[in-house]
Amino acid sequence: MGGKDHRLPTRARNKRAHTREVLTSGRPTAASPVARLENMASIADHLRIALDGRWREVRERTRAELASSPEFAPHHTPDLEQARAKTMRQMRLLASHGYAADGFAAEHGGTGDTGGAVMSIETLATSDLSLMVKAGVQWGLFGGAIENLGTQRHHEAYVKRTIDLDLLGCFAMTETGHGSDVQALETTATYDPATEEFVIHSPTPSSRKDYIGGAAQDARMAAVFAQLVTHGEGKGVHCFLVPIRDDDGNDLPGVSTSDCGYKGGLTGVDNGRILFDQVRVPRENLLNRYADVEADGTYSSPIESDSRRFFTMLGTLVRGRVTVGGSAAAAARVALTIATKYALQRRQFDAPKSDDEVLIMDYLVHQQRLLPLIAKSYALQFAQNELVSTLHALQAQGSDADPQEQRELEGRAAGLKAANTWHATAAIQTSREACGGAGYMAENRLVGLKADSDVFTTFEGDNVVLTQLVAKELLTAYADEVQTMSPVEWMRFAATTVSDVVKKRTAAQQIIQTLLDTRQDNEEDGSLFNRGTQLRMFEDREEYLLSTAARRLQGAMKREDDPFDAFNFVQDHVLHAAAAHIDRVVLEAFVAGIEECADDEAKDLLGQVCDLYALTVIEEDKAWFVEHRHLSVERAKAVTRGINERCRTLRPHAETLVDGFGIPESLLGSAMLDGPGTDAVRKATVPR
Amino acid sequence: MGGKDHRLPTRARNKRAHTREVLTSGRPTAASPVARLENMASIADHLRIALDGRWREVRERTRAELASSPEFAPHHTPDLEQARAKTMRQMRLLASHGYAADGFAAEHGGTGDTGGAVMSIETLATSDLSLMVKAGVQWGLFGGAIENLGTQRHHEAYVKRTIDLDLLGCFAMTETGHGSDVQALETTATYDPATEEFVIHSPTPSSRKDYIGGAAQDARMAAVFAQLVTHGEGKGVHCFLVPIRDDDGNDLPGVSTSDCGYKGGLTGVDNGRILFDQVRVPRENLLNRYADVEADGTYSSPIESDSRRFFTMLGTLVRGRVTVGGSAAAAARVALTIATKYALQRRQFDAPKSDDEVLIMDYLVHQQRLLPLIAKSYALQFAQNELVSTLHALQAQGSDADPQEQRELEGRAAGLKAANTWHATAAIQTSREACGGAGYMAENRLVGLKADSDVFTTFEGDNVVLTQLVAKELLTAYADEVQTMSPVEWMRFAATTVSDVVKKRTAAQQIIQTLLDTRQDNEEDGSLFNRGTQLRMFEDREEYLLSTAARRLQGAMKREDDPFDAFNFVQDHVLHAAAAHIDRVVLEAFVAGIEECADDEAKDLLGQVCDLYALTVIEEDKAWFVEHRHLSVERAKAVTRGINERCRTLRPHAETLVDGFGIPESLLGSAMLDGPGTDAVRKATVPR
Repeated sequence: MGGKDHRLPTRARNKRAHTREVLTSGRPTAASPVARLENMASIADHLRIALDGRWREVRERTRAELASSPEFAPHHTPDLEQARAKTMRQMRLLASHGYAADGFAAEHGGTGDTGGAVMSIETLATSDLSLMVKAGVQWGLFGGAIENLGTQRHHEAYVKRTIDLDLLGCFAMTETGHGSDVQALETTATYDPATEEFVIHSPTPSSRKDYIGGAAQDARMAAVFAQLVTHGEGKGVHCFLVPIRDDDGNDLPGVSTSDCGYKGGLTGVDNGRILFDQVRVPRENLLNRYADVEADGTYSSPIESDSRRFFTMLGTLVRGRVTVGGSAAAAARVALTIATKYALQRRQFDAPKSDDEVLIMDYLVHQQRLLPLIAKSYALQFAQNELVSTLHALQAQGSDADPQEQRELEGRAAGLKAANTWHATAAIQTSREACGGAGYMAENRLVGLKADSDVFTTFEGDNVVLTQLVAKELLTAYADEVQTMSPVEWMRFAATTVSDVVKKRTAAQQIIQTLLDTRQDNEEDGSLFNRGTQLRMFEDREEYLLSTAARRLQGAMKREDDPFDAFNFVQDHVLHAAAAHIDRVVLEAFVAGIEECADDEAKDLLGQVCDLYALTVIEEDKAWFVEHRHLSVERAKAVTRGINERCRTLRPHAETLVDGFGIPESLLGSAMLDGPGTDAVRKATVPR
Repeated sequence: MGGKDHRLPTRARNKRAHTREVLTSGRPTAASPVARLENMASIADHLRIALDGRWREVRERTRAELASSPEFAPHHTPDLEQARAKTMRQMRLLASHGYAADGFAAEHGGTGDTGGAVMSIETLATSDLSLMVKAGVQWGLFGGAIENLGTQRHHEAYVKRTIDLDLLGCFAMTETGHGSDVQALETTATYDPATEEFVIHSPTPSSRKDYIGGAAQDARMAAVFAQLVTHGEGKGVHCFLVPIRDDDGNDLPGVSTSDCGYKGGLTGVDNGRILFDQVRVPRENLLNRYADVEADGTYSSPIESDSRRFFTMLGTLVRGRVTVGGSAAAAARVALTIATKYALQRRQFDAPKSDDEVLIMDYLVHQQRLLPLIAKSYALQFAQNELVSTLHALQAQGSDADPQEQRELEGRAAGLKAANTWHATAAIQTSREACGGAGYMAENRLVGLKADSDVFTTFEGDNVVLTQLVAKELLTAYADEVQTMSPVEWMRFAATTVSDVVKKRTAAQQIIQTLLDTRQDNEEDGSLFNRGTQLRMFEDREEYLLSTAARRLQGAMKREDDPFDAFNFVQDHVLHAAAAHIDRVVLEAFVAGIEECADDEAKDLLGQVCDLYALTVIEEDKAWFVEHRHLSVERAKAVTRGINERCRTLRPHAETLVDGFGIPESLLGSAMLDGPGTDAVRKATVPR
């Protein structure tokens, strides 16, 4: 070390020394030799195959399409007009390749691969969440309403045009005054037998359709949810196709659309509002698969109960909820990949016994921030795969599907939507913070992911309301009569009828039973890594919370004068029970997913990731486990130690784990990776 | 009820009935009669007075100024150019009223009210966080560097011009490769005795100044932090005034600025990068209060130790960190006010025994989301007030300030910056989610608050690094020699030297002692509402965590071969100890704040808010309290019950509590308040 180096302070000098060293010897890693990391490449492939699951081919195809065109490169386009135009260009490009056919039955002009349709829309989220939402609205929600609520006349007239984007539609359910409580929608569709038309009307300011994707600009037709009134009688909410704009994009008579303008993100989606002033549509525009109105106004339906009919209709639209959860999870995986790759390049503060600074991924606290979220992403993806399979199977059965299974699917979809979207909010936020100032620059993508995905906890059902829905199904054993009840009402019902809560295993029943039978419940630290023990803890918590929720409900309803007070007294307990149920479902799916993995090394790694997931869930609810004697005080401390231990053993595999998410490099869209301030460029460009 | 009503389904009919009722009888509230709420108006005033604290007059004046001009109305301006222009217009308007004088000594052209300067910048955050940051950079950081690191020649030349905005400056500390580790900055300032100039140079890509507010466009001069080299010797980081642009805004020779472009938010701030290629500035441009270089290159300083000098210089800049924490907290208060007022207007789902739907604020789960965050906002504001008072006192003493007190101030500032900004991230996120889809619309402001405030956890020091700094000061008993050490090094030092950790009470020492002496530690639920018991639990946890952290450090250093492994083994424990310390400081400040409140009713209410804060902190760390036998399993359950109880008793005061934050209505900037879909408009405009 000679020349000018002595003029620099020690720490700057060390950096120079390091720079020279890596020029000749390659990147040093604190945690493991380079050779070992390289061996892992193939493990990442196995992880990806495991995570991709049954619809791997669709995922691969969609990824390849997104990676192949510059039009799909992640972008930051803050201007509303430009962003919307860009999203429409992307949509047309997709449509030109027949992208949307999977979502529609072969006899309507599609290919009928429901699961594939969900997976391909989810994969769009890795490129652009505005595109994912726009595609989801056009093909999933609008197209899905026609496909699932309509009959032949609608399929013939609209499906092909919807797939091709000849017809742009929107899904007009939410109103300014009513989001979560769909049954209380105020828009009316009053049948007029004189002209054989429905009159669509917004009677109050709060009945305005609001936040509707496509309503501000692009949509020509709306699938409108409204209270059907015929012969002076309300028949509940039904769906109607209502043209809203002419070919030039002008509002049709009686229709007043407006623009929601800028939102937190999703700038490429033209959310808007619609007010109807006595807008007339032909009788045939009622999507009449589950109910019809004859020319004289006579109402008929194969489903007698108003509420059952309503929920049957809603149930066929569950795909939207499934897609939103999966897409949020996809966005979270992109964020975690970016943050992890950055943490493997970025150094800060001197390392002891080294001329180099410490890679931030080597700090335990940094590992604790990222690795549990990566583990949860793995867990949720296995659960999501299972959910999509169930959805696919039930939608293939159409009207023959078992109603009980359909209700379970809806509960599962609600729970996983909440879990996935809350996870996405947390994971993307943490990823941003873990990248410091660089994470805040738009060119590094994390803030865009955050801004775009933030509303996912709200749309397709507010997460708290959805979690409550999970509890409702569990506590009332899927009783038909509760569907139409308000939260207070169904809890009251549950209090009077609840008996034994049904527990049904989800996946890989036999493996799980074996694991449970061989569990180790002793007080040694080691047993917390035993899968059977973990499963048992998840199960026990769920069972206990559900049965005590039922008992508390009964007690509260007896004790409190006001049923609302009784409801409030147990609401958090009930939500807790539902969350515990979802956690169990997710863990079981993880276990089943590991079992499917063909490669032993990858399987072993997945096992460690599963440990981290399970222990993190226990840690987050540790006080409950201790308070209810499901965990001794000593074992509780061992949970924390176990998490740290798994962070340590997984640290050398951090890159492998995020590579397993399979995001093509061109879709990461983060300028800081390999930029100045990271190892990559320091090596390449620092002058000697 | 006649006419057309029978045509509507039951729920829509109920809504109509309600509409009529409120037209004649005013807004019904589930929780308390209207009359009682009206009485509370004056309590809100008392709360505001208590929260405003010592600099109430400055806060009031700034609020009035912001509320009086449409230029300061909250706005959503996504376009970079427009947003930057708007922020500069706001800056000039402020400057024209002599806004910035408080931050500078009377003899330099200011009024010398440091505390007032911090409070007035913090208050800007209620209007616009871009403005707050821009003002903070110009007057707090750039102006503060000149004021605190410069001497008469700098004060005379620049202070007045900085106040008046004749000179626009930026604060060029962070580099692409170094954010948290300021001592490792790579930019050099090499003294050339031949010309009596410093040569400012960026030797590597990672030495580029990055994220610098003002560097992209507006700044004409930069306060540049660089390694001073003279006579071939490095003397550590010093600050230099370097002109970077000419009057027309062109880069000066050797200076290359570039634009960071779009960020997650703060669109009105022109963050940029600066590269220096052998840029020469006169010797006099060294800010030479703490060190000087003579014409011949001889270096001198009143502070012998390089590290002590460096940290003394940094210490004088602590105001920036204090301001950032306070501003984030102000943004959180705006968000919580919006979300609470919305929850008091928005109804969803039928209420039992009522024709109306339930106000979302009446759901316990909604209360649990918002009220603890409101309580924490109260707690943090009392702590922040105390911090600003200490800062004010010490900066008034200048060089005479006690170094120990200065170090304590810095630790406190670091800890409260982390606490305030993490709180802001959580509170604003929760507020957005609590307002559903409406919360995602830019016109309702919450997403802008989120986007703008998100980076506050990162700038002026990454929160994790700052929390570590708190621990460092506590564990090394403010030892001088640790200042320059890396985290691994100082923990090693702490392990060898630590003895008894000093615990110093912060505020209202006597009251707190009395409360402690009269505490009730029995096993009854009620005692958890006892202030002395709460204080004792906070104290005990801190003491235990600090002393065990010290012991574990010693053990780990002995046991582990690699000091980095030892560091990693204890890092999370050490951070936990620091967080517990901050929690205790905040609680004590709350207690002192209550004591100052003049109104009995307001005082009583503050006491309940304080309970909610204390119990929420305990709840969040409940597993620890139980594991370490500071809380029995039964008492642990009582903590949760206590929180729910306080949510219930505070619910009728929700509006009063947020009104206590004192945000002028015109600065809420949220279109949804009193918009369609809320009680306010339904009442006024629904047609009969």
